[in-house]
Amino acid sequence: MSAVANLAVPTPTSHVPSPESLCWRTDVRMADAARVAELVAATVFFNTEEIAIARELVEEHLIKGRASGYWFVFAETADGMAGYACFGPIPATVTSYHLYWIAVAPACQARGIGRALLGRVEAAIREGVGTRLYAETSSRLQYAPTREFYERTGFRRAALLPDYFAPGDGKIIYEKLVSLGGS
Amino acid sequence: MSAVANLAVPTPTSHVPSPESLCWRTDVRMADAARVAELVAATVFFNTEEIAIARELVEEHLIKGRASGYWFVFAETADGMAGYACFGPIPATVTSYHLYWIAVAPACQARGIGRALLGRVEAAIREGVGTRLYAETSSRLQYAPTREFYERTGFRRAALLPDYFAPGDGKIIYEKLVSLGGS
Repeated sequence: MSAVANLAVPTPTSHVPSPESLCWRTDVRMADAARVAELVAATVFFNTEEIAIARELVEEHLIKGRASGYWFVFAETADGMAGYACFGPIPATVTSYHLYWIAVAPACQARGIGRALLGRVEAAIREGVGTRLYAETSSRLQYAPTREFYERTGFRRAALLPDYFAPGDGKIIYEKLVSLGGS
Repeated sequence: MSAVANLAVPTPTSHVPSPESLCWRTDVRMADAARVAELVAATVFFNTEEIAIARELVEEHLIKGRASGYWFVFAETADGMAGYACFGPIPATVTSYHLYWIAVAPACQARGIGRALLGRVEAAIREGVGTRLYAETSSRLQYAPTREFYERTGFRRAALLPDYFAPGDGKIIYEKLVSLGGS
């Protein structure tokens, strides 16, 4: 599964919310499946299959709860979802976690919401005595902002699998030692 | 998820079946969940959580069919399951597949059943116009026979993620271009 994010940096506008003005929550509600699909579609970074996967992970949580292995952080404004992250413990590992998705709505970008989402993910992992966070993205030019986001928030490029997603579209695996502190 | 195999090479005994004497099938039956768990436990390579995962993948197939993304090849003798492989298309990729599990019962090892299972997996991938097969295993000493199996069947070591499974227990990602021919 690709965990590719839209964290491009448009020019900030005055009505864009800051992380401090947002409402944060980690419980998952019925309406989140549609809202996540809408947010992910709005970023125009993801194809139909990827949007369906993002939605399915919310639905898995709605059915199985935390046992689904898909945990969430939502950032909301009065108008709706500003961003969200989906992460969880990696099966058969002791203290490794995967960041499945992190995305910020186009209207809410460039205000540090992505970094704030990541900080809350890392805090939750440290609470669960997790030590490592992995994220994957594409090697394509389109994902340069995503790679820059990971690189400036303390991830290291751990591996490249050429042509993984498609010919000319490799997978980059990023790794961050979350036990060493916040992002 | 770890796809780690017990492909150690004990001294062959005369009653060990050869690949030619086995019954091969790809349909999944109710009894396979228990049989796979039994086989995987018998290899003594896997812990309780891993055995549960192996079983769950069979159950996922029983519920959702091929749409589960977990496809199987079983090799059977008159006495039961000699070996099996579990593989499937990787979501959000165009032609990449993952080898989730490959295991051979201790009494049936060292006769090429692992290689024959892999050959059938690759043939199925080629039929589906797949091009790449990924497998993951542990960097621990215990898995040296598994790594040797992948290396002598045409996989290349594509990445190492140190301490992924646990401190001192890294993940090695193997890759094979299945479009280039059999194993």
